[in-house]
Amino acid sequence: MCHLSLRVLSTATHSIAQIDEEVAKLLQLKAQLAEDEPHKFVLKTAKGTRDHMPAQMALREKVFSTIISCFKRHGGEAIDTPVFELKDTLTGKYGEDSKLIYDLADQGGEILSLRYDLTVPFARFLAMNKISNIKRYQIGKVYRRDNPAMTRGRYREFYQCDFDIAGQYDLMLPDVECVKILAEILKDLGFNGFVIKVNHREILNGMFEFCGVPADSFKTICSAVDKLDKLPWEDVRKEMVSEKGLAEEVADNINKFVVKKGGSELVTALLSDDLATNAAAKRGLEEMRLFFDYCDLYGITNKVSFDLSLARGLDYYTGIIFEAVLTDDGQPGETVGSVAAGGRYDNLVGMFDAKGRAVPCVGISVGVERIFTLLEAKALAEQAKLRTNETEVFVASAQKQLVRERMKICSELWDHGLKVEHSYKLNPKLLAQLQYCEERSIPLAIIIGESELQKGVVKLRKVATREEFEVPRDKLTTEIRNYLKNMSSQQERA
Amino acid sequence: MCHLSLRVLSTATHSIAQIDEEVAKLLQLKAQLAEDEPHKFVLKTAKGTRDHMPAQMALREKVFSTIISCFKRHGGEAIDTPVFELKDTLTGKYGEDSKLIYDLADQGGEILSLRYDLTVPFARFLAMNKISNIKRYQIGKVYRRDNPAMTRGRYREFYQCDFDIAGQYDLMLPDVECVKILAEILKDLGFNGFVIKVNHREILNGMFEFCGVPADSFKTICSAVDKLDKLPWEDVRKEMVSEKGLAEEVADNINKFVVKKGGSELVTALLSDDLATNAAAKRGLEEMRLFFDYCDLYGITNKVSFDLSLARGLDYYTGIIFEAVLTDDGQPGETVGSVAAGGRYDNLVGMFDAKGRAVPCVGISVGVERIFTLLEAKALAEQAKLRTNETEVFVASAQKQLVRERMKICSELWDHGLKVEHSYKLNPKLLAQLQYCEERSIPLAIIIGESELQKGVVKLRKVATREEFEVPRDKLTTEIRNYLKNMSSQQERA
Repeated sequence: MCHLSLRVLSTATHSIAQIDEEVAKLLQLKAQLAEDEPHKFVLKTAKGTRDHMPAQMALREKVFSTIISCFKRHGGEAIDTPVFELKDTLTGKYGEDSKLIYDLADQGGEILSLRYDLTVPFARFLAMNKISNIKRYQIGKVYRRDNPAMTRGRYREFYQCDFDIAGQYDLMLPDVECVKILAEILKDLGFNGFVIKVNHREILNGMFEFCGVPADSFKTICSAVDKLDKLPWEDVRKEMVSEKGLAEEVADNINKFVVKKGGSELVTALLSDDLATNAAAKRGLEEMRLFFDYCDLYGITNKVSFDLSLARGLDYYTGIIFEAVLTDDGQPGETVGSVAAGGRYDNLVGMFDAKGRAVPCVGISVGVERIFTLLEAKALAEQAKLRTNETEVFVASAQKQLVRERMKICSELWDHGLKVEHSYKLNPKLLAQLQYCEERSIPLAIIIGESELQKGVVKLRKVATREEFEVPRDKLTTEIRNYLKNMSSQQERA
Repeated sequence: MCHLSLRVLSTATHSIAQIDEEVAKLLQLKAQLAEDEPHKFVLKTAKGTRDHMPAQMALREKVFSTIISCFKRHGGEAIDTPVFELKDTLTGKYGEDSKLIYDLADQGGEILSLRYDLTVPFARFLAMNKISNIKRYQIGKVYRRDNPAMTRGRYREFYQCDFDIAGQYDLMLPDVECVKILAEILKDLGFNGFVIKVNHREILNGMFEFCGVPADSFKTICSAVDKLDKLPWEDVRKEMVSEKGLAEEVADNINKFVVKKGGSELVTALLSDDLATNAAAKRGLEEMRLFFDYCDLYGITNKVSFDLSLARGLDYYTGIIFEAVLTDDGQPGETVGSVAAGGRYDNLVGMFDAKGRAVPCVGISVGVERIFTLLEAKALAEQAKLRTNETEVFVASAQKQLVRERMKICSELWDHGLKVEHSYKLNPKLLAQLQYCEERSIPLAIIIGESELQKGVVKLRKVATREEFEVPRDKLTTEIRNYLKNMSSQQERA
């Protein structure tokens, strides 16, 4: 084999297609060999991933529908992109985090990777489909080979819910709407204590320049500042000075700024500060002044905090950046961390266009796994029970040999659009059938018996109260609809 | 290279480790070659995958919601599983199709593969979570390294919509409900011409035995029979005899059976045929008799065809199998092929359980991509226009300098739950704003101007008819709700 591979490597005439073919053959051979070898099968999901049970799915669907409603309220259109992209599409977009990208095996053909977020594929989508303006939302799973911390809602496979506005528009108008959407979503999900931190890449760059950071260290120093929400200043300073070679006095200059947070008054103060002598910082600050002005009109000023320590790790941001943090919903002393984030990225689409044509974009991404984790804990604490199915009527039989009657009734009700179940046993016990209804909060049960059938009636039972009524067999559908309507309006009044 | 690959495949001493090494070298070589070639970034999605535009998403959401409604009508609960599984979980479940599985790169850690269907992960889910009965549905993307035929709706990444009933129940009761669900879904999606072919693995096995197929050739001959929907008998016979070494007279025996199709009368006829002397065939036929009996009760007999040529390629089926085929919706002469399929698989869960505890299952899988392709073509032919967003009101300004007024109105309407957009330009042209409304079928536009604002009114415009009304500024929300209500009830009457 060794001889063989040397020959392979020294032959100059082969092409990529030939190698692909060769690899495919070897892999097939490997698969055959693997089947022959005895090995132990482990029953688990892949590291950092999980199954979702019906109760979790019911909660997830509720969260998604709240978020999608908000996206639609702001004119969002849905798109979808594949779960994997050409590896080249993702290369060079994520800075230090690129190492977390999942690659697909080279099975002959294209080199692919699982998407790391929905933003880079969206930019690829805009460039490839030559779309220069769209307000799009997308909900999909993304993949990161991170160290999972599943109890705190951090996974290797997780959902992102993104809303982005692409197009050449006037300053801050799309940006402030993104922040408005974020505030609406968190409120709609039932969170009252939250703050949306905002900062601006131009202010950060201006601040770095003003403090004396060498131009080629902006990105790496920005990554260090990004850690301030998790680490104390001393640790971050150490990273800047010892690891990244920043002069001590420069780090101390930075510290004077990154402790600052506030509202529009901070913007005003900084505009009169020496910092504003820096052109980039001044541009950023003026945009922030306009942003706060617009926040007033959208009634979200009290939810927004201008925070000079907010940096965001990703390479592609160019303007305003934001991050939403819950403040009072976790256990005391426990921080939930950011549940949504976003910002402006004006150059990303241009990176995909052969002629570099840019499409300015701004958007948000809601990381719903942490939200699920919180809402699950909340539901558990409140002993709230979400139904996991929507069945309205269960068709039960009180005696043996009635399966055909049950099936006829089910068929009739399904064909009228009702949500119906019956037992898959020929002769189930009545008690077992009624228990099933109670466990699943099915509101109504039909109970059929020989004597009732002969009289042309069936028994209808309200499962919660155990009241029973006789209903004519030939008016069954209408009667059920009436009962369901009355029961749901009673529930609303209660 | 040809010489080389022959040597690779004929060497008997190689191990998996050697192959890994070999593959790694080849891939390195490929990477070198790729680097030497002037690297050109290609702007595309991965082979066999596609983006979905808003119009396609609107259609897709409609199809999903129709399918999910039906699943819920039958008591379905949603679950979700990760997109990738341990490779071992998928190994040995798909017969000849295993070569189509996408593997993830070995980046240190577990060896993973993208899921090939939702059925095997569901069985893993049941075994791992020790669930012995559930009626679950799941909608998710699956991945196959197949030769894509995208114009006919065949992709490498595609959605499956699955409904499965797991549990130890009485014969054919869950099975017939799956077929009922399939019939309801196709009807609800607007397809009238369709047939659900059914057959039974026990009948196939019994038939093979009866015809003289050696026991160890059942699977491979079953795979050959499976091709009868695409190839003429002569080709399939050739595969059986020349490639798979079946005796000619055995193949001819099989032919006598696989041409048969019909309804319950065919079941009765075969039960009196010599075939019924075979125990497996007899068991299968008796189950089919019960199945047809139940089909009558569910009103689906005329949609079901007992077809002895239906085989289904997958290894895991053990009982009834089905496949839905559209019969009259395509272009004349063009067959759409199967749009849904399924069957009973009683042993798959046991393969994952350390003690081999089985959970009998039966289920269906709707392959929506072909359905999308058909419905897209239909919508195009009928020039039907699905809205891609749901915006109810566009807030326009007739003069300059009114952006702050627009924003105040938007904010108020959003906070009241209305779906609202405005222009992200400071001073957009009125015509451009109204055009935007017309293009997107937004029903109402608010037009604000200085003089109206001073009078305390705004103009409300019905976009379709271009009628305009003055509305008091402080009653705006209520008035808009009334207009929307009237317009939608007019539309319903129309």
